[in-house]
Amino acid sequence: MMKKLLLNFLLFTTLGSYAQENLNFNKQKEITSPEINTDRSVTFRLDAPQAKKVELQGDLLAAPGTAAMKKQADGVWTYTTTTLKPELYSYSFIVDGLKIRDANNVYQIRDVASVVNVLIVGSGKADNYLVANVPHGTVAKRWYNSPGNGMERRITIYTPPGYESGKTKYPVLYLLHGMGGDEEAWAALGRTPQILDNLIATGKAKPMIVVMPNGNVAQQAAPGEDAKGYYKPTMQLPHTMDGKMEETFPDIIKFVESNYRVNAKPSQRAIAGLSMGGFHSLHTSRFYPKTFDYVGLFSPAIMPFGKTESPVYADVDASLKNQFNNGLKLYWIGIGKTDFLYQAVADYRKKLDGMGAKYTYVESEGGHTWSNWRDYLVLFAPQLFK
Amino acid sequence: MMKKLLLNFLLFTTLGSYAQENLNFNKQKEITSPEINTDRSVTFRLDAPQAKKVELQGDLLAAPGTAAMKKQADGVWTYTTTTLKPELYSYSFIVDGLKIRDANNVYQIRDVASVVNVLIVGSGKADNYLVANVPHGTVAKRWYNSPGNGMERRITIYTPPGYESGKTKYPVLYLLHGMGGDEEAWAALGRTPQILDNLIATGKAKPMIVVMPNGNVAQQAAPGEDAKGYYKPTMQLPHTMDGKMEETFPDIIKFVESNYRVNAKPSQRAIAGLSMGGFHSLHTSRFYPKTFDYVGLFSPAIMPFGKTESPVYADVDASLKNQFNNGLKLYWIGIGKTDFLYQAVADYRKKLDGMGAKYTYVESEGGHTWSNWRDYLVLFAPQLFK
Repeated sequence: MMKKLLLNFLLFTTLGSYAQENLNFNKQKEITSPEINTDRSVTFRLDAPQAKKVELQGDLLAAPGTAAMKKQADGVWTYTTTTLKPELYSYSFIVDGLKIRDANNVYQIRDVASVVNVLIVGSGKADNYLVANVPHGTVAKRWYNSPGNGMERRITIYTPPGYESGKTKYPVLYLLHGMGGDEEAWAALGRTPQILDNLIATGKAKPMIVVMPNGNVAQQAAPGEDAKGYYKPTMQLPHTMDGKMEETFPDIIKFVESNYRVNAKPSQRAIAGLSMGGFHSLHTSRFYPKTFDYVGLFSPAIMPFGKTESPVYADVDASLKNQFNNGLKLYWIGIGKTDFLYQAVADYRKKLDGMGAKYTYVESEGGHTWSNWRDYLVLFAPQLFK
Repeated sequence: MMKKLLLNFLLFTTLGSYAQENLNFNKQKEITSPEINTDRSVTFRLDAPQAKKVELQGDLLAAPGTAAMKKQADGVWTYTTTTLKPELYSYSFIVDGLKIRDANNVYQIRDVASVVNVLIVGSGKADNYLVANVPHGTVAKRWYNSPGNGMERRITIYTPPGYESGKTKYPVLYLLHGMGGDEEAWAALGRTPQILDNLIATGKAKPMIVVMPNGNVAQQAAPGEDAKGYYKPTMQLPHTMDGKMEETFPDIIKFVESNYRVNAKPSQRAIAGLSMGGFHSLHTSRFYPKTFDYVGLFSPAIMPFGKTESPVYADVDASLKNQFNNGLKLYWIGIGKTDFLYQAVADYRKKLDGMGAKYTYVESEGGHTWSNWRDYLVLFAPQLFK
C-alpha cells in the first residue's frame, strides 16, 4: 500500500499540471543534453528517430551556420563541439527545417520573441557569472509610480548581501537594457545578480544597489507581466528613443532614493546601458548635469535622433562639454571590433576627443552580443564609487 | 545613412545573442499561436511543412490523449479547440513523435524537468490570476541562513502593495510547494503574486506577506540557481519527507520575523501547502504548537512516514489533538474528486472526525493539478487573519 501510494505520488506529481487529465504522454529516452565534457567540448543529443535531418544552431559553433548532427542506431542524434572557451552559449536544434528547443535542457532565455536554450561552459571568464558559494544579494521585482509616463511600471532591483539587515547607505548603479529588452533582461541575459555577488564577494567591486528599469516607456512591464496579458513580444515599440525615457528618468531616481538606503549624491550614482540603453545613458547623464559621476556606454547606439521636440536632444554638444567639466569621475565606452555600431562609436569618440573630454575606451573582440555586455559589466562595476 | 543604421540596429538586436556570429537563422512564417478567439476557443498553429503528423497535447483537450492538427496548403498545421472554460492551460506539439514547444509562444512554465507552453483563457476564475490594473506587491528572491541545514537557502517573498513605504506590521502566510517543486513554483505555476494582488485590491483578502520557501532541504535553491550550476532536475531528492523540513522550519520563521515588519504571533501566522507541501504543513503546524492559527492542506500527501528517527513524527495523534485544542482558527482541507490522494485524505478526515476536530473541507472537481491549487489559494487566502 505504502509503496503503491509512493509510486503513484511520484508518477502523478512528475506529470505536473497534466497529471491525471492526460496520461497519454510522449515517452522519450532518458538522455542527457547538453553534456559538458571534461575537455570543455559539449555533446548535444536529441531523441528523434523519425527525423531525416537534424542540425545544431548556436553561438558555440566554430563557423557561422549550422552543424549536422549524426543519427545513432537508437534514433538519438548527436553532435560534439570542439573545445569551447568559457562562455554562456545559446543554441537550438533544427529538425527537418523546424527550429526547436532541447527538451532535456530546462535552462533557456527569452530575447524579444524567441526563446533559446542556454548552457554555461565554466571556468575562466564564466566564473564571473556562475553562481558561487558566496553571500547572495536579493533580486526584487517591484513596481514604481511614474507620473511622467502616467503609469505604474515594473523595475528589477538588486540589493547587495547585507542590505536588508544593515543600516549602511549604498551607492546605486542604474543599468539599462537594449531595444527589445525590458526590466528582466539584465538579470536574466546579463546575469547581473551573479556578477555583482561575485565581484562584491572577492572585494573587486563595492557593495552597490543595481537598478534595472524598463526602458520602453510605452510598456508597464515585460511581456506577460502587465494587464495586456500574454501577447507576442515585438522589437519595435513606440517612444523608445524619442526623449521620453530620459525625460521621465527622475521618476526612477526619486523612487529609488525614497525607498532605499542610498547615498543621494552624484559621486554615488552611476548610469550604464547597452545599445539603446547606452543611448539612454549618454543622453540622461548629459541632460541632468551633476547627477551621475559614473557613466558606462556598452556598445552604445550612437544614433541620429532626427526630428524630435524633446528638450533632451537640444544643445547636445554644449551639455556634453558641461558634463565633462562637471567633476565626472568615469566615462567608460566599450564596443566590439565587429559591432555594426563600431563606426558610429568611432565618430562619437572623435567628437569627444575634439572637446578634450577624458574617457576610458575598451575595444573587445566580437560584436553586438550579451557575451560582450556581461564582460563589460565585469570590467565597469569595479571602477565605480572609488 | 540614418535609415540604414536603424535597419541594422533592428536586425541585429532582434537576433539577440546570436547577432553577427550566426546569421544563417531559420526563417519562419509570421504566424500567431496560440490565438484566443472571441468565443473562447483557441487556435494553435505550427509552421512545419516537412512534417507528416502533428498533434496537440495539453490539458485543454476535451478528452485525454492528443488531437490531430491539420495541415494547410502553406505548410502551417492548425487546430482549434472547443470553447474553453477560463483557465491557465499548458500544451505541447508532437511533430512526428517529437514533443516540442510552440516557437510562437514565449510564455511557458517549468515543472520539474519539463517545460511546457502556457496560455490563459480569461474571464471567470482566471481573473483571479491575470495581471490587473491594481496596485502590485513586490516579489523578492532572497537567501536566508539555515543553520539547521548548514547552508544558505533561497526563498521567494511576496510583500503586499505599500509594504516598503509603510510602517504597518503584516501577517504572514507560509506557502509550501509539492514534490519536484522549489521556491519558484508558487510564484510561477501558482501565480501567487497575481492572486494576492487581486484579492487584496478587491478587499477580499487582508494585505499579507507570503513566504515561499524551498521544501527540498537537500537543495539550496531551484535548479540552476545554486553553485551546482545547470543540471537536469529530478523528481526524487533526499530528505523531502523525513522530518528535516519540519525540523528546520524555525530557521525560516526566524529569518522572516527578524527581516520583515511582521506580527510575530500565532493569530498572524498561516501555513499552507500543496501535496508534499500539505504534508509539511500538516506536520509543521502540529509539531510546533501555538505557532500557526491557520492551516491549509491543498491535496495534501497524507502519507505513511515509515521508519524515521525524526521527533517530528512521534505522537502524531496526541499532538494533533493538542493542536485542535490550541485556539486554532482555521484548518482547511481541499482535494479534487479524482485525486489519487482522495482516499488517503478521506481516511485522515475520519481520524479528525474521530477526535472531534473542526475543519473546513472543500471537494473540487479534477485531480492533483495546479488548476486546483490556484483555486484553493483563492478560496483560502480570504479566510486568513480575520
